[in-house]
Parts: sequence; structure tokens; C-alpha cells
Amino acid sequence: MNGAESLVRTLVGGGVNVCFANPGTSEMHFVAALDRVDGMRCVLGLFEGVVTGAADGYYRMSDNPAATLLHLGPGLANGLANIHNANKAASGMVNIIGDHATYHRQYDAPLTSDIEGLARPSSHWVKTSPDAMGIAADGAAAIAAARTPPGQIASLILPADTAWNDGSGPAAVPPAEKPAAPSREAVAEAAKALRSGEPCLILVTGRAVRADGLELAGKIAQKCGARIMAQGSNARTQRGRGRVSVERIPYVVDQALKVLDGLKHVVLVGAKMPVAFFAYPNKPSRLTPEGCEGHVLARPEEDQIQALEWLCDEVGARATPAPVVNDAKPAPATGAITSEALGASIGALLPDNAIVADEAVTTGRGFFAPTKSAAPHDWMSNMGGSIGLGMPLATGAAVACPDRRVVSLQADGSAMYTVQALWTQAREGLDITTVLFSNRTYQILKGELANVGAGNPGRKALDMLDLGRPDIDWVGVARGLGVPGARVTTMEEFNRRFADAVASPGPFLVEVVL
Amino acid sequence: MNGAESLVRTLVGGGVNVCFANPGTSEMHFVAALDRVDGMRCVLGLFEGVVTGAADGYYRMSDNPAATLLHLGPGLANGLANIHNANKAASGMVNIIGDHATYHRQYDAPLTSDIEGLARPSSHWVKTSPDAMGIAADGAAAIAAARTPPGQIASLILPADTAWNDGSGPAAVPPAEKPAAPSREAVAEAAKALRSGEPCLILVTGRAVRADGLELAGKIAQKCGARIMAQGSNARTQRGRGRVSVERIPYVVDQALKVLDGLKHVVLVGAKMPVAFFAYPNKPSRLTPEGCEGHVLARPEEDQIQALEWLCDEVGARATPAPVVNDAKPAPATGAITSEALGASIGALLPDNAIVADEAVTTGRGFFAPTKSAAPHDWMSNMGGSIGLGMPLATGAAVACPDRRVVSLQADGSAMYTVQALWTQAREGLDITTVLFSNRTYQILKGELANVGAGNPGRKALDMLDLGRPDIDWVGVARGLGVPGARVTTMEEFNRRFADAVASPGPFLVEVVL
Repeated sequence: MNGAESLVRTLVGGGVNVCFANPGTSEMHFVAALDRVDGMRCVLGLFEGVVTGAADGYYRMSDNPAATLLHLGPGLANGLANIHNANKAASGMVNIIGDHATYHRQYDAPLTSDIEGLARPSSHWVKTSPDAMGIAADGAAAIAAARTPPGQIASLILPADTAWNDGSGPAAVPPAEKPAAPSREAVAEAAKALRSGEPCLILVTGRAVRADGLELAGKIAQKCGARIMAQGSNARTQRGRGRVSVERIPYVVDQALKVLDGLKHVVLVGAKMPVAFFAYPNKPSRLTPEGCEGHVLARPEEDQIQALEWLCDEVGARATPAPVVNDAKPAPATGAITSEALGASIGALLPDNAIVADEAVTTGRGFFAPTKSAAPHDWMSNMGGSIGLGMPLATGAAVACPDRRVVSLQADGSAMYTVQALWTQAREGLDITTVLFSNRTYQILKGELANVGAGNPGRKALDMLDLGRPDIDWVGVARGLGVPGARVTTMEEFNRRFADAVASPGPFLVEVVL
Repeated sequence: MNGAESLVRTLVGGGVNVCFANPGTSEMHFVAALDRVDGMRCVLGLFEGVVTGAADGYYRMSDNPAATLLHLGPGLANGLANIHNANKAASGMVNIIGDHATYHRQYDAPLTSDIEGLARPSSHWVKTSPDAMGIAADGAAAIAAARTPPGQIASLILPADTAWNDGSGPAAVPPAEKPAAPSREAVAEAAKALRSGEPCLILVTGRAVRADGLELAGKIAQKCGARIMAQGSNARTQRGRGRVSVERIPYVVDQALKVLDGLKHVVLVGAKMPVAFFAYPNKPSRLTPEGCEGHVLARPEEDQIQALEWLCDEVGARATPAPVVNDAKPAPATGAITSEALGASIGALLPDNAIVADEAVTTGRGFFAPTKSAAPHDWMSNMGGSIGLGMPLATGAAVACPDRRVVSLQADGSAMYTVQALWTQAREGLDITTVLFSNRTYQILKGELANVGAGNPGRKALDMLDLGRPDIDWVGVARGLGVPGARVTTMEEFNRRFADAVASPGPFLVEVVL
């Protein structure tokens, strides 16, 4: 059994059962091994950003890493933006990156590059596996690294001769580490802040924004008269009717400062003290007021649910009813298309147990409020700020959860970065409904150009923020990539197309012209 | 004048007059400065791989670097694959990469990453400009670095506060360095090898594959009874009727070994001793036979034309007629579409002074021979082996040479990586005729799977090499991005559509179904 097969059997034996792939010549032995071994689903992406973004979505919905297969340094580079996003989301991922045969590197053939150097900035674990007898053990170590709480990026570089020489056979993968226990001192400190009578916020993210975490946080907040909010972005928030709803810290600095004004304490559950997404002249980076104190209840790698349970006991909130949402769903909106109308219709029509991949950017800023009383669902956001995540994320989530509907809320500018994801959705027949918000501009940048005080933009500046001239025909592009679609220009049309799409198998794209 | 404007005025004053851009918030002051300053053409790409690949094409056709504008680490990462290719092509490029304000980095906001770490593997020059008073000087140094022969990648990181604080005003850019003089000893050594009577190859690339270099090399080869070949890939070969034609070292190892068999000497003009693109089990990495000696006439950074002139004098070949191509053009092919037929028709119909961007991969391997007697043209290849270069390269070449027709010979698998380039071609109204070879497979990998001895592939392996299910409708995708197109299924249709397209202004895509 060669090195490649030893590695594939290690992955499958270790519970890594999906490989998102964009292979090249140096990965052909690995591909051949995938072919020989049962138990690994292979999903082709026609660009590496699709592959790595899908692995992020897969992890968020399964709590288990997928493998990716990437072609040397440039293949890795193409996947790095979404590896960056996955890293910031604390998603686990096992990247298998092909390389030249070890003896071939000295010749500096065209595809030679510093793969480790490229991998390091967004990986927790990087190793070039120097020979075939060691690759299975290195693969097991990579899986263990990817599963290290709360989830890590492991990048295993596989030289071609490591793949084709005789290997050891599969290695055993150690059981996944559990998250570290929280500290009793941290619980006591948080309880003290909550009991101080001073304005206090419980700031949640990570594991704590799933339904059980939010229920506990909701009880505590209710009991202590504290507020509860989530980070600006969160990997996977469980929300909707019957669950505890949390608002997020606004993206816009002035709004965030206002929301956090007057606070004396922030209890951090997997979260950091909130900071501005970008710096702006004469605006602060830290969003909490002067003198506001942070109290770490649980770090990202610690057991946030356990910490909330202990805190719940400590403040005597076990029996306190959690403030769950019992409002009726909004009614679908009619008439002209606006951001508010779209939020209402999505809130009304979102199917039960849907998964939302949110890269709606400016159009979607108002969607969170009207969807809080929607049918129960999971909401995934972009954690690293690198656009081009949404459609790959939806793809990976759909692979992880074949029985659930994925709704991909997608801004046009961001969609164009990884538009190739639509083809994978078509090939795999994934139940993904893409709502494509076609405002034909990097709208966020028009606001930012004003925010940074950059003055009155002229034609040359506006042309760099504008996706018009020509307008992209999204229905045409999607159809060209195998995904049927329809364009809508009224809310009535939107409601009909969206309701049809979420009830029909396979992918569909609704282009919403704004 | 703030730092951003100081930098833009430095670029414009220093002769950098095109900026390929995909900006974000941290670059808004730079965008505003571009708006205020005349003399910089700004070209938007909807993905960073388009931006950096276009800068490569622009340099190859203008011998002058363009600037790129990229958004922090992930924006750079998205552009890295084509920066890798540009680096291997020795193209000069000034990357301006936005970053958080210096004081904001400590907060680890979502887009924070190690930008210098990402830039270093493919950059010759990397600097984070720490304050606004120094940015103009840093910009001047970056331009000088980009122009260092034979052309280098300069990556200048521009923190937001370096952009918005008060700057120094523009800095003067030193005149471009000339390539170093070749060595007289190297000329003597090459002459000795050529006169030895033993089988000798003159291997050219870089500046030496332009018309003047090839004419000199052709005279020398003719006089001395030596052979002349070009590297497997070359940045810009000037060829066609009336010029000296060179074959390239074949990609396939067994073919290359055969072509180079029996050689005793290789005179290297900007080139390295030929090596295999990839390693294969039981095949050599070096392609020259045992005992064959390399003689460096001119290194990549040295003046290859001067070296060839001196060598020409040394061997007394000045008066020798260069073996230029005088054959008639091939006739356009008719009937069924094959690779050979396409080569003949392209050779027949290529307009005068065209620029060919070649990423035709397997389909195009045979195109070089039938185009050697085509109308005079420039031929650009992928130098770094990272696919997804072709359409961006064509885009940059068309921006550099608005009076010439660009013909983009493009394989489908590679095209999908940077498909966004079509939109930029439409927006800028560039005279680019894309010939899209739709074989619906990573055909090269099917061969490679066999080459590496990976055995009989099954369905799972084949699915990872196959772009079908669904077939991509390239005419639909192009139209969706603003580029008109047509699908052809016979050579007669191809001839008509291609001839029409190269004679009509603006971009057009001919999808050739194979």
C-alpha cells in the first residue's frame, strides 16, 4: 500500500469522510487512492476557494472536519481567503496539499513555491511529510490538530513521492480532545459582575450561540437583569421561534458605540471585547466605553456550555424561564423590493430547520430582526471578512446536512469571487436556494468611502465601486453553470419564486434586482 | 496632501500609469486619491486573480509595471496564484496592499492577517510602510524594485493611517536600471561549445525570444550548425512569417528526452537547463542526457541581446542570413473540429500583429507548429503553471496595446478559475477574441493519472477530472458577464465566427465544442 492510500485509509478510519477537491498532477496518486477506498465522498470544486469555503460550511454544520485536496502552492493560495475565514470561524479542516516529489524541488520547476510559507499565516498546524512510511502518522496528527477545540486549520503537505512510495498502511487517529473545562474563578468573577447592579452585557459566540447555550445565557440575563448580545459575526447561531434571540453588535462603528454606551461589564463567552471591523479617522478601535471591564467566562477553546451551566447555577437561574421568541412569523411583504420587505418575506417563508448562509452584506443588514420569529433555523455568517465565502459555505453545509434546506443569502459583488460554487451545487444536486441581491455595486464601499472622510467621489472612484456597465445577468450565469434561476422585480414574484424554490429539490437561484 | 495622494503622485510621476484594482474599505483613501490625480487609468477586476494576471499581461506587452490594488491579506491571497505566474515570467508589478491602520492591528479584527508572510514567497521586495511621511519614498523604492531587470514583484503594504495621515508629497523615482552587461568569458565559452563540432543547442527565453533576439540566435545557429529551441514556456515570443521560428521543449517527459537526446552542449540565453514540469516515478527530473554541459551565455537579469550580438560577432555570423519563416500561411481547415484543424485555422486567420494569450493546455499543444507561418504576432504562455492566467493575461495585454487584437486561446478548466475576467473585458471594451476550448474535462490530468502509473481510474477518480455533469454553457456564462459569444461545432462555423470576431471591435467568445 503506497503512501497516498495509507493516508486515505487513515482519513476514512479517523472519521474524515468528505474530501472537497481540486486536484492536479502531483495529487494523482491520492486521487487514485480515493478511488480504491470506500467511505470518502469526493466533491469537486472548479476553483479552490469553493473547496475551502465548503470545508468551512461542512465543519460548522457537522462539527467534524472535512479534507480538502489542493494543488501545490498556487492551489493553496487560491483557497487561502476562505481558509482565513474558516480560521476566524474556528472551523476544523484538514488540507492535503500536493507538492513536487522531494528530489524534484531542487530544480525549481514552474510550480515550485514555498508552500509552508503560504500555509502558515492561517494554519495552526503545518507539516511537509517527508516520506511515505510517515505519512499515515502525519495524517493522524493533522486530523487531531483539526479537531483540537474549538477547531483548527491543519495543512499537510504531501510530496508526490511520499504519495507513491510504499507506505505504512493506515495509522490510528486518537479520539478528539474535549474542550477544556472552564475555570471556577472565571464563573465566580462573571457572577460578581452580574450581581454588581452595574450595566452588564453577556457577549456570546462560538458554541454559546447554539440553542442550548443561548437558553442558558437567556436564563442568566433574565435572572440578573443583564443584556445579552452576540458578536457581529458568529459561525452558527441557532435561532427562530421558540429559541432565545440575540442581537449582534452592529458593524457600523457609531451604531455599535451607541448600543454599548453606558456598559460597565462585559461577560465574554467565547468572545473577545468588541472592536471595530475597520479603523476610521477619529473613531475608536475599541467599541466598549472607557472603564468598561471584560470578564472572560470561557475562552474559545474552553467548554462554553459547561461554563454557562455553572454560571446559571451560581446566579440561581436554573429555574428562570428563558426569554424565548414566541412572536408570530412576519407576513410576506408585497409591492416594491426593499431590504425591509425582503427581510419580512424571508422571515415568513424560511422553511423549518433551514440553514442560512449569510453573505448578503449591506442588503442583509436588516434581515436578522424579521427572521428572529421565523421557523427554527441555523444562521452562518462570514467570520473573517473576506468576501466570496457565502456560496461555498452553503455548498459545504448542504453536503453535511442532506436532509435540510440551505438558503444562501448572497450579495452580488461577493458572489462573483467564487461563482464557480454554483456548478458544484448543480453537480451534487444540493438543496440550496440562492437569493442573489443584485444591487450592481460594492454598496458597502460607497458608505465606507464616505466614512473614511474620503470626500466627494468622482467618476473614476465610483467606477471602482460599481458592478454595472455591464450589469451581470445572474440568471444567465447560473444557468450557464447548471443552476436554474429566475429574476424578480416585485415582492410578489419574490415570494412565489422563493417559496417554490425552497420546496423543490436541487439548487435554484432567485436574482433580486434592487 | 495625505499619504495616499503622495503615493499616487509618485506612481504617476514614476511612469506607472495603470492600476488594476479590487479595493476594499482600507483602500478608500487610495481610491479617493486616484480620483483626484490625473494620469492613472484604473481598471476594476471582480476578483483579485484577474487583477494580478492582468498586471502580468500588461508588463509583458509594455515592459513597464502596472500597479495593483488589493484588499489586505485575503485580497492579496486571491491574487497570489497569478503573482506566482508573473514572478516566474519575470514580470514587474507594484502591488499596493491595503492594511488596517497601524494602531488597529493589535485588536485582531476579522480581516487581520500576516500580509508580509503571504507576500514573501512570490515577491522580491516586501515592505509595510509605517507612516505617511515615508510612503512616497517607499512607493518610489517599490517601482525601482519592480523595474529591476528582468522584472520583479514588489509588494508595498499600505496601512490605512499611512494613507490618510499627512504625507510628504510625491517622491522622485530613479531611472530604471539597465540589464547588466553579459560577461565576455561567457561569450567565449559559448563560442567554444558552438565550435566544438559536438551536438549543441542554443536554448532561449526572456528577452531573447523577441524578434531581434531570435534573429541573432538564428544566425548563430545557422553559422555553427547548432540547433535552437525555446523553453517550454516563454513570456513573449515574437514569431510568424518573416521571423525566426523556434520550437519549444515538449511538456511530456518522454518527448522532451527524445528531442534532447544526444546533446553535448546547451548554450543558455536567459534560460535554465531544462527540467521536467513534474516528477514521475522512474523518470528523470533533468531532461538533458548524462554528460551534456550547460553554458550560461546570459542570465535572466543580464542583457541577452547584447550577449547574442557579441556571440554573433565571435562566431562570425553577422552576415549569415537568419533562417526566417517564408512558408505560406496554412489554409483554414474544414470539416470536423480537431486540435490539428484548429491550429491550421488559427494560423490562417490570425490577424496581423495579434497578441496570443495561450492557456489552451492540452488542446493547444499542437498550435505552435501551424502558427509559425501565420501573420507576425506575439505569443504569451503561462510561465508558472498555475492555471487561471489566460483570460486575465489577455485583459492586461489589451490594456497595454489598445491598437492590437488579442486572441485568448483558453481551455475550459483553466478559464473557470478566473472567469470574472470576461466582465472586465466587457467593461473596458477590449478587443479580445476568446477561443474557449470546451472539452469538459481536466484532460491533462487524465493523461497524468496514467503517467504517474496510478492505474485504471474508476468513476470516483474520473469525476474529479471531469467538468461535465453539468456541461458548462460558456456562451451563456460569457453573455451573463457582458461578452457576446457563439458556439461552433464545425470548422466552417469556427472559421466564420473567428474571422468575424477578430475583425470586430470589443470582446467576443467563440466556444469550440470538442
